Amino acid sequence: MFDFRQLMVDEPGPPQAPWSGFPKYNFVGGHGDAGTLPVDKLIAAVTRALEREGRDLATYSLQSGPQGYKPLREYLVSKLKRYTSIDCSTDNIMLTSGSLQGMDLVNSALLNKGDIVIVEESNYGGALSRFRKLGVEMIAIALDSEGMRMDLLENKLGELDKKGLQAKFIYTIPTVHNPTATILSSERRQQMLKLAARHNLAIVEDECYADLVWSGERPAALFALDTDERVIHIGSFSKTVAPALRVGYVVAPWSLIGQLLTLKTDAGSGAVEQMMLAEFCPEHFDNHLTTLNAELRQKLDTLVAALDREFGTSVSYTYPPGGIFLWVTFPDGVNTTELCIAANKAGVAINPGEEWSLEDGADKSMRLCFAHPDHAQLDAGVVELAKVCHAQFGIPEFGANKPRN
Amino acid sequence: MFDFRQLMVDEPGPPQAPWSGFPKYNFVGGHGDAGTLPVDKLIAAVTRALEREGRDLATYSLQSGPQGYKPLREYLVSKLKRYTSIDCSTDNIMLTSGSLQGMDLVNSALLNKGDIVIVEESNYGGALSRFRKLGVEMIAIALDSEGMRMDLLENKLGELDKKGLQAKFIYTIPTVHNPTATILSSERRQQMLKLAARHNLAIVEDECYADLVWSGERPAALFALDTDERVIHIGSFSKTVAPALRVGYVVAPWSLIGQLLTLKTDAGSGAVEQMMLAEFCPEHFDNHLTTLNAELRQKLDTLVAALDREFGTSVSYTYPPGGIFLWVTFPDGVNTTELCIAANKAGVAINPGEEWSLEDGADKSMRLCFAHPDHAQLDAGVVELAKVCHAQFGIPEFGANKPRN
Repeated sequence: MFDFRQLMVDEPGPPQAPWSGFPKYNFVGGHGDAGTLPVDKLIAAVTRALEREGRDLATYSLQSGPQGYKPLREYLVSKLKRYTSIDCSTDNIMLTSGSLQGMDLVNSALLNKGDIVIVEESNYGGALSRFRKLGVEMIAIALDSEGMRMDLLENKLGELDKKGLQAKFIYTIPTVHNPTATILSSERRQQMLKLAARHNLAIVEDECYADLVWSGERPAALFALDTDERVIHIGSFSKTVAPALRVGYVVAPWSLIGQLLTLKTDAGSGAVEQMMLAEFCPEHFDNHLTTLNAELRQKLDTLVAALDREFGTSVSYTYPPGGIFLWVTFPDGVNTTELCIAANKAGVAINPGEEWSLEDGADKSMRLCFAHPDHAQLDAGVVELAKVCHAQFGIPEFGANKPRN
Repeated sequence: MFDFRQLMVDEPGPPQAPWSGFPKYNFVGGHGDAGTLPVDKLIAAVTRALEREGRDLATYSLQSGPQGYKPLREYLVSKLKRYTSIDCSTDNIMLTSGSLQGMDLVNSALLNKGDIVIVEESNYGGALSRFRKLGVEMIAIALDSEGMRMDLLENKLGELDKKGLQAKFIYTIPTVHNPTATILSSERRQQMLKLAARHNLAIVEDECYADLVWSGERPAALFALDTDERVIHIGSFSKTVAPALRVGYVVAPWSLIGQLLTLKTDAGSGAVEQMMLAEFCPEHFDNHLTTLNAELRQKLDTLVAALDREFGTSVSYTYPPGGIFLWVTFPDGVNTTELCIAANKAGVAINPGEEWSLEDGADKSMRLCFAHPDHAQLDAGVVELAKVCHAQFGIPEFGANKPRN
C-alpha cells in the first residue's frame, strides 16, 4: 500500500484521531445553547431569502462579490454602530467562515516565522496554538479585573525597544476575555491605543463574545476609538446565533481587506447562512440576544451553585460579567492537565489551563464552558468532576457539606 | 495614518481590486445555470432538515464531527458508488468549503516549496496559480482527444528518474477536463495508475465537472480503479447544484484524512448547506442532473451556433462531451490576453489561454464558460466579442456570411 506519510511536508504534526462523539458532560468547545436557538425564525428567514434570491446561488458569492453577501454586511454596519460605536462601511467588512478563518487570514497576511506578537497571558487556546504553529514569538501580558494590564504592556514594549525588537501587533480579546471573562476598561482601551501608536503596532481585536454581557453595557470597541486605522476588528455570529453556521467577519481598512481577499482562496463562504442571517437579524437579533443572555446567566448560576456546593472553598473564580465560560483555579496539589485526562475517562470534558494560558501555574486552572450542557448536565457534570478530582488529588475534601471518602 | 503594508509578510502579492459587479456578458467564473436551479426543492429540503435537527446548529459540526454532516457523507458513499464505482466509507470523506478548500488542504499537507507536481498542460487556472504561489515546479503533459497522453507522461517520469528527481503527485482532471473537456479513457486511467505505482507517485483526481457528461456515461474514477490507496479524489456540488453553497469533498485513505483535518482550522464548513444537500440529494439529485445536463447542452449549442455564425472558420474547437466551458483556438494574429482586455471594456469577460495553459501558443486560445449566461446573452456576447476581435486583430474577416468592415 502507498503511504501518504512519505509525501508529507516537513514537520506535518500528529494526525487527528477519528471523532468519537461528544462527551456526556461537555464543558469544552464553545458550543451554544440549543434551547434558545431560534430555529423557527431561522427557517422562516432562510425561506424568505431563498424565495426572493435563491437563483443567485448559481453565481459564486451571489451578487455581492468576494467580501460576502452585501445585505448582511449592511446589517453589520448598523449593528456595529449600535453595539460597538464602530463607524464603517460595507467595503470595510469581509465575511468569513467563522471568525477563525478571519484570524487565519490576518495571520497569513501579517506574520512571518519569528515575528513577535503581544498577547494576553491567559488566552484563547486556538490563538495560542495558531501562533505556535506559525513559529511566532508571543509576549504575554498579565490581566487583572480590568483586563490586560497597561503598565506591564508599557514595560514590555519598552524592553523590546531597548533590544531593537519590533512586535507586529497586539492580539487582544478586550470584551469578555477568553478565558477570564474580563472586560478591558475604557481607560485602558485609550492607553492601549496610545501605546500601539507610540510603538507602531497594529491591534487585532477579537470580539467574538462581546455581545454576551449580562448588563448589556460595554465599552466602545478599540476599532471605534482608534483614529489612525491601526485596528482590525474580528467578530462572529457563532456565540450569538449558532456556531455551526460558520459566519464571522473582519472589519478593517480597505488597504488590508484588499490583501486578505487575495488570501481567501475558497471562492466564498457558505451563502445560505449569510442570507439566513441577513434576513433574521434586522428583525430578531436584539430580542434573541436578550433571551439568550438571560438563559446563559441562568446556566452560569447553575454551574456556580454546583461548584460552590461540590468544591466549596477548594476552588476560586471570579463571577463573570458575561460570556460562556468560567475560569476556575485550584489550590496547590491539583494539576488540571492530569485532571483533564481522568475526567475524560469519566465522561467529563474540561479545558486544562495549560492550553489556555501562558502564565506560570496555569496547570492549576481550568476553563468550563457552560452554554451547551443543560441545567441537569451542568449540575451532574460538576458532581462527577468533584468525584474524579477527589479520587485523584484528595481535593475537594468536602462536598455538599459532607466529608468525601 | 497607520499603513498595514509595513507589517505584511514577505512577498505579499498585489492586493485585490474592489469588486465592481459582473460583466454584461460573463463567460468566466464557472457559475451555474440559474434557470434549472431547484430553488423550491432546496427550500423544502432545508426546512425539513432544520425542523428535525435545527437545534444541532448549537454545536460546532452538528453531531457529526469535523469531517462534516454525516448524512451527506452517507449520501456521497452511495452516489460515488453509482456514479464513479468508488467503494468507500463515511470515514474516507471529508466535507470542505468547496473543492477549492480541499485542494488547498491537500497542497498544504503534501507540498513544500520546490516540490515537483505533474499537471495536464492546459489546466484549471486556479490550480496553476496555486502551484505557482507555493513555489512548486510543474511538469506539463500535453493532452489529446483522450486526455493526458500517457506516452509523454512515461517519458517525462523517465527523465525525472534519470535526473534523480521525484515528483510528489499527478494533479489531473480526468473527466471533463478543464478547459479542454476531454475525458481520460479507461485504458489511460489504468496506464496512469501503473506509471504512478512504478514511480511512487500519488494522484490527485479533481472531478468537479465529472457529473456533467451529456451521454451519462463515464469511466470509473481513478480512485475506484486504484488498488493501493495512492489516489485522492476531489469533488463538489458547485457545478451540479449551486456554487454559492460551497460544498465540496475530499475522498482519501484515513491516513491522509487524519492529516488534512489538522490543517482545516476553520472549525467546520457551513452546516446549513450540508443539511440542505443531504435532504435534497437522495430524492432529487439524479433527476435534477438530467434536467441540468439537457439545459447545459442546449446552452452549448447556442454558444457554438453563435461562434460558427460570427467567427466561422477563424476559430477551432472540439465539441465537448460535457461540462460548462468551451476551449476555443484562434489562428496566428490573435492574442487572447490582449483580446481579453479589449473585450472587458466592451462588457465581455473571457478567460485568456495564458491563464489556463502552460503550452507554447496558449495565448491563441480562450475559455468560454456557458452555464450562466442565458441563451440571448450567449448569442449577443459572441456577437460583441467578434466585433471587438475584428476591430483589434482584423479577425474574423467575415461574420454571419458578410464581410466585416
